[in-house]
Amino acid sequence: MALIVQKYGGTSVANPERIRNVARRVARFRALGHQVVVVVSAMSGETNKLIALAKEIMPDPDPRELDVLVSTGEQVTIALLSLALMDLGVKAKSYTGAQVRILTDGAHTKARILQIDEDNIRRDLNAGHVVVVAGFQGVDEAGDITTLGRGGSDTTGVALAAALKADECQIYTDVDGVYTTDPRIESRARRLEKVSYEEMLEMASLGAKVLQTRSVELAMAKQVPVRVLSSFIEPDENGVLPAKSGTLICDEEEIVEKRIVSGVTMSRDEARITLLGLSDRVEAPADVFTRLAEANVNVDMIVQSQARTEGAVNLTFTTGRRDAPRAAELMRAAQAEIGFEEIRVDEDVAKVSVVGVGMRSHAGVAQTMFRALADKGVKFQAISTSEIKISVLIDAAYAELAVRALHSAYGLEAV
Amino acid sequence: MALIVQKYGGTSVANPERIRNVARRVARFRALGHQVVVVVSAMSGETNKLIALAKEIMPDPDPRELDVLVSTGEQVTIALLSLALMDLGVKAKSYTGAQVRILTDGAHTKARILQIDEDNIRRDLNAGHVVVVAGFQGVDEAGDITTLGRGGSDTTGVALAAALKADECQIYTDVDGVYTTDPRIESRARRLEKVSYEEMLEMASLGAKVLQTRSVELAMAKQVPVRVLSSFIEPDENGVLPAKSGTLICDEEEIVEKRIVSGVTMSRDEARITLLGLSDRVEAPADVFTRLAEANVNVDMIVQSQARTEGAVNLTFTTGRRDAPRAAELMRAAQAEIGFEEIRVDEDVAKVSVVGVGMRSHAGVAQTMFRALADKGVKFQAISTSEIKISVLIDAAYAELAVRALHSAYGLEAV
Repeated sequence: MALIVQKYGGTSVANPERIRNVARRVARFRALGHQVVVVVSAMSGETNKLIALAKEIMPDPDPRELDVLVSTGEQVTIALLSLALMDLGVKAKSYTGAQVRILTDGAHTKARILQIDEDNIRRDLNAGHVVVVAGFQGVDEAGDITTLGRGGSDTTGVALAAALKADECQIYTDVDGVYTTDPRIESRARRLEKVSYEEMLEMASLGAKVLQTRSVELAMAKQVPVRVLSSFIEPDENGVLPAKSGTLICDEEEIVEKRIVSGVTMSRDEARITLLGLSDRVEAPADVFTRLAEANVNVDMIVQSQARTEGAVNLTFTTGRRDAPRAAELMRAAQAEIGFEEIRVDEDVAKVSVVGVGMRSHAGVAQTMFRALADKGVKFQAISTSEIKISVLIDAAYAELAVRALHSAYGLEAV
Repeated sequence: MALIVQKYGGTSVANPERIRNVARRVARFRALGHQVVVVVSAMSGETNKLIALAKEIMPDPDPRELDVLVSTGEQVTIALLSLALMDLGVKAKSYTGAQVRILTDGAHTKARILQIDEDNIRRDLNAGHVVVVAGFQGVDEAGDITTLGRGGSDTTGVALAAALKADECQIYTDVDGVYTTDPRIESRARRLEKVSYEEMLEMASLGAKVLQTRSVELAMAKQVPVRVLSSFIEPDENGVLPAKSGTLICDEEEIVEKRIVSGVTMSRDEARITLLGLSDRVEAPADVFTRLAEANVNVDMIVQSQARTEGAVNLTFTTGRRDAPRAAELMRAAQAEIGFEEIRVDEDVAKVSVVGVGMRSHAGVAQTMFRALADKGVKFQAISTSEIKISVLIDAAYAELAVRALHSAYGLEAV
């Protein structure tokens, strides 16, 4: 007997037939005596349809009213899933974000959860109900409906699991777990049974699209065990999921067999900007990065090298690809004040990273990386590191080659 | 400067273009300095689509969850209309039934309004906002979403007007007012400028489909002036509606020129049931009507006449056409106990009625009616009366003929 929070995305509830499938799975868990809270997204496509309708009427829709509109998407799903459960003879009760009282700040379309009143849900669970909660939405202090932004249903699931002190938060998705790297690039990629919050955070922000970064941060802060599972995994006739299915995201301490590197990630969502012949004034780099920060442009890697011109340096940095045109514009507008000769923007780059908590206690991780890349003739243009990851910026053409080389160099394909 | 509640039905908000039309009209009233509260229904077709979706999943859907589902229909409309108003530069704010706090009892799908918290709306009105409220829905003491049943948006409009002590509740619909009779039957039918609550109640329950009976009852109880208007009437460039447009439903005292008869109505929604050779036991009729009442079958007209058999009577009564098969079934099942020889059901009947508060003080109203019908050779099978109406049951084939004869006999076509 456990308390489980299960989250199903829009694809899993896309039509009445799939909603019935979700209900059947929930019913099996319930039949085993588990208490189940289900968090659902809007039926796939609905949210975009509602946003399009709003934009047809007001091109830049007011965020308060947009939240009133968009939140109807999940409200439809909670009612339909509750009906599907009742149709199977399972007691069920739906809650909107406001009805739970998922209290958020007032930042419409990107609100943050402040507090969850779990009393009503607990009462219904104890009375034998499955509780079905609308993901992605909440209510602010003034009683206005808010939404949490993209991927918000994952966050709702984790936050509810934390408030209810659930045994596990299960995120059902279209992949069956977290892999050592993208299986579409390296067919020998293997599913990780467990991965630490820190590693998952690095992987999420480095391009693995399994979970939204915010939901992982929240799970780490509240110590909620999160399991990523495929919607297509079927529990056996006893309602039990295959042992060790999916990937458990948990505390580092709970991972017995420590790996040095857990995964290799790759992102093409980068751009490299180089300022050639930058004045070697002490304030020049600060001048550059202050302007970027004020314009909300995040800078990732930074490299400074000697320029050919006496008394000048070359400054290279990377930004998200979407921010690059704006960053370049900012630099050009201030060329005289900052003092540089030329600017170059290169979007033909990729960032390849290795992530692993084991790096903390093992030397030689970077050496293995550089040797593996050198063996394949891959040059790197910049490096950034954290305690548990090393990233290199390389020519985009070599991205997949580099991923496969690193996956092999760290022995990730071994069982 | 007045406080006006305007209610728009599903057809008026069926698509973004029509929603923009409603917004333009509201904006003109606002520009004149009036405070405006708008009550809207779901976009036409949406409610039925949601109900069909529910039934696809659970043939007899749980009423609590059905209300959660169906209430999203109006929630979509309030957001879209608020956006359309903002797009015109008009300050606007939407409210679901729960957000207003339209408190209802817990009778899902047919809840009754108990109380309205008008403080937030009044604060927004005073701050210059147009307030857009979801019709048809409320919330019960437990925080569960409820709906008011068919025609519930009219009731929401009237209840809000009462709570806010509005100067007028305007119901925009596809007809331009209340007529002396159905213009499709009698082309000389004429729009009434004013009609009393009592008359409107009789007309509504007798088949005039302009307003839901409950909303008229509420308007009468709370003395809310209600104006029925066409959605197609355009205010002039000053935002003023044509003088005396639509029909004002108000207190009898406010109608200076009293008419003896205000309107003629017709309903085919009747069935006649006759029990031939009913035992003349004193308890026999009570036996019949108790059984019908216990099964929630409403009986309207009752006629008892001598049967050919000694010691027996014939008992004729009318019910709603939908209830007739069930009523007949009940009678047949208890034939031996009640004691009658034969049962006949006739659905080929119509009820034609004349309504007018003037009847209270005028004799000869019935006489005029019977003479007019006799002149056309229309026989009546049963009669029922109230203080302000006389109804006769006739052969359905003569229904239109009777309506025209009575319309003329009471001089209703005169201006």
